[in-house]
Amino acid sequence: MKKVLFATTALVMTAGVAAAEVSLSGDGRMGIVYNGADWNFSSRARVTFTLSGTTDNGIEFGGSFRADQAGDSVLDNGAAYGSEGSVYVSGAFGKIEMGDAVSAPEALFGDLPEVGYTDLTSAGGLENDIPYLTGDGVTTLAGNPVVLYTYSTGPISIAASMSDGKLGSVNDQQEYAVAGAYTYENYTVGFGYEMLEDVGGVAGVDYTQGELAGVATFGDTSVKAYFAKGGKQNPVDQAFGLGVTSKFGATTVLGYVQKAEFTAGGDVTWYGLGASYDLGGGASIVGGISDDDLANTDPTADLGVKFKF
Amino acid sequence: MKKVLFATTALVMTAGVAAAEVSLSGDGRMGIVYNGADWNFSSRARVTFTLSGTTDNGIEFGGSFRADQAGDSVLDNGAAYGSEGSVYVSGAFGKIEMGDAVSAPEALFGDLPEVGYTDLTSAGGLENDIPYLTGDGVTTLAGNPVVLYTYSTGPISIAASMSDGKLGSVNDQQEYAVAGAYTYENYTVGFGYEMLEDVGGVAGVDYTQGELAGVATFGDTSVKAYFAKGGKQNPVDQAFGLGVTSKFGATTVLGYVQKAEFTAGGDVTWYGLGASYDLGGGASIVGGISDDDLANTDPTADLGVKFKF
Amino acid sequence: MKKVLFATTALVMTAGVAAAEVSLSGDGRMGIVYNGADWNFSSRARVTFTLSGTTDNGIEFGGSFRADQAGDSVLDNGAAYGSEGSVYVSGAFGKIEMGDAVSAPEALFGDLPEVGYTDLTSAGGLENDIPYLTGDGVTTLAGNPVVLYTYSTGPISIAASMSDGKLGSVNDQQEYAVAGAYTYENYTVGFGYEMLEDVGGVAGVDYTQGELAGVATFGDTSVKAYFAKGGKQNPVDQAFGLGVTSKFGATTVLGYVQKAEFTAGGDVTWYGLGASYDLGGGASIVGGISDDDLANTDPTADLGVKFKF
Repeated sequence: MKKVLFATTALVMTAGVAAAEVSLSGDGRMGIVYNGADWNFSSRARVTFTLSGTTDNGIEFGGSFRADQAGDSVLDNGAAYGSEGSVYVSGAFGKIEMGDAVSAPEALFGDLPEVGYTDLTSAGGLENDIPYLTGDGVTTLAGNPVVLYTYSTGPISIAASMSDGKLGSVNDQQEYAVAGAYTYENYTVGFGYEMLEDVGGVAGVDYTQGELAGVATFGDTSVKAYFAKGGKQNPVDQAFGLGVTSKFGATTVLGYVQKAEFTAGGDVTWYGLGASYDLGGGASIVGGISDDDLANTDPTADLGVKFKF
Repeated sequence: MKKVLFATTALVMTAGVAAAEVSLSGDGRMGIVYNGADWNFSSRARVTFTLSGTTDNGIEFGGSFRADQAGDSVLDNGAAYGSEGSVYVSGAFGKIEMGDAVSAPEALFGDLPEVGYTDLTSAGGLENDIPYLTGDGVTTLAGNPVVLYTYSTGPISIAASMSDGKLGSVNDQQEYAVAGAYTYENYTVGFGYEMLEDVGGVAGVDYTQGELAGVATFGDTSVKAYFAKGGKQNPVDQAFGLGVTSKFGATTVLGYVQKAEFTAGGDVTWYGLGASYDLGGGASIVGGISDDDLANTDPTADLGVKFKF
Repeated sequence: MKKVLFATTALVMTAGVAAAEVSLSGDGRMGIVYNGADWNFSSRARVTFTLSGTTDNGIEFGGSFRADQAGDSVLDNGAAYGSEGSVYVSGAFGKIEMGDAVSAPEALFGDLPEVGYTDLTSAGGLENDIPYLTGDGVTTLAGNPVVLYTYSTGPISIAASMSDGKLGSVNDQQEYAVAGAYTYENYTVGFGYEMLEDVGGVAGVDYTQGELAGVATFGDTSVKAYFAKGGKQNPVDQAFGLGVTSKFGATTVLGYVQKAEFTAGGDVTWYGLGASYDLGGGASIVGGISDDDLANTDPTADLGVKFKF
């Protein structure tokens, strides 16, 4: 990403102290999407604010949110109220992030590759998203921040995340998660464990989930695989998936397949395949197709251009 | 407009490749408005994000939206969802724009001059706005983008625009429009044709409209005139109008008059007169008055200052 | 505050004319808050746009609003509609500000010190906020701008503010306020008088309030005191308070106490104590505690970090 960085160094810097700064970046996309039934034009444009600074003794701090996440002072939502974006402090002790943070395992393993210029996610389906139990603003009430701690030393990365279980004094589900990863040459393996207590704010409804994940890189190809096993009360009994990203010059090909088995029955497999061609300067042509093995559903597909500013 | 342009050239430029950038500009205004019955204070302040970049083979891309159009990630609206602002790609083939784009004829002819520091538009009235059938986010459902294509070569400009007729899989009215313009010395003449099918998403309710427009420039004076003729099902049977802009040093005087004849009867004529005095540095004093020939309505008027940053 | 200032001087300046510009700054915070019953994580991140320019004859103009105050073009709110942020013109004649402006006395005297990293204000309580009758977007309908005039010469500052009493043609309460202050060496004394007519848009319900305020500075310690006396129809009969801010190197200690006596009975005293430690670079550790003398309420408290970018 070519960031538009507005260093204030020359204006406010004092000897030996890095200056606080606000930087801007942006992204956009346009093209056509087939939603499984109809073709639609689809476009968007976004701007991201990145805040950063350093204290006198070298602790870094900052935050980030998009203009559309800034919030509305009438709705009392968004980054101005902790429900979008996040802030952090970072130093030798690791990094502490608060806000709409991802959970500990998602911080270390991420999701499977996004295909298509729009990511091709549909309501209700997992598609390329690993079904983490916690984090990312999904599982807690709007405006209830999550705290994420991450630390790396040599080949080892660890992470822990939690919510506070209350929105003001209203009961909210409580989340905890831990994760660890070990990297040896081009191989990384890791585990995660997540607890979600009082789901929906109801005492006694508790979910747990364990995850194993691995990433291997061979030249310009990267492979990611995971296995997740849910606790007795979870809707998802187990899930597993595989994602591959491979670069050939300016072209990148991506694909994923994942299957979720539900406690209540009705397994679903999702799969997707996409390609991206880098036009240089921040633009690329991107297309993809995704589908599941449910009856009576068509694949979704898209083709368009993506921009980074 | 004095734009605040943050070129990232020095930071990210590589040999021969123009860098992607985000630029900021802004506008503001303050003053008093007479709405036909009461006097009000009226002010506003806005910021615009402009995104731009160039691919390795010279195709330009970008987009633009205001901070108040960025959208809200809870409401799922705004530029982040394609319902405000727009993105584009541009090259020797012309320019393709998607989002809250104007229709083809509006892209070539625009509207009659805005009078007053607030533009003095009231709910329901045309005032200085030419009654285009399509485009500009007015005629399609919120969030349903319009695609606009424009191309110029020598004295000829052409444009075409359309929507996709569906918001996801919900029926929406479908719009198509074409326009052309020819410029000879200080004279430009043009035509436009617009189709709006399934108005309000109802099959069989179709509007059409043809437009003729001309612009002539004499020294510091510019005159614009148009005539529009609606199809059989249109509420507007025909409309025509004239606008004049004339500069005298730092002072600009603007005026318009237009009349719409409705299929259901009840013709209305709107007219407005305004003046602007340039204070330099991006500020001007602007005032105006507008009225219609309907019984029992007072003129509206305003006087204030406008700012460009 | 270390502002990120993007001077466009080099890009657009013409001889002798200062250029219009848009500057960005930001703030953030994260920590824990005790709301009197439960502990919560609490964080936020915000960006502020500051617009400024100068006319050819030296009149300054500009405005300011935060990204979360920019407004939403669907909700028709925010700075784009005059209900958040403000714009101004400023010169030898003083400064005229329009928008979500504070009232005349608040412009000169402000509030008592904010304690805690979150300011520790709770719904319904005054805490450190002086109970001004008018201004600050509180007393008029959303979107109804307030005009504030301020002027300083030598030791004297004066201010006047008013609203227009109508939102469009809807009756709104009408506010007027005046204030003056005189500074002699390290002492400032001032008065304010506010009128709020047709409270809630109801004719005949009129509030008035007079205020006396004083500020004294002794070395690194500043003391602010006020007394407010309400008119016959006011809910608040009288109120008075004291705030102290004292710096010891990188540490600042702040405290306030204020009491409001209500016409309907039931006096309340609020008090708060806080401290801040400057980490340099725009970061500080801030904590505080606040309480009132009402039965059955616990104190609120917080501890966290604040950032300025």
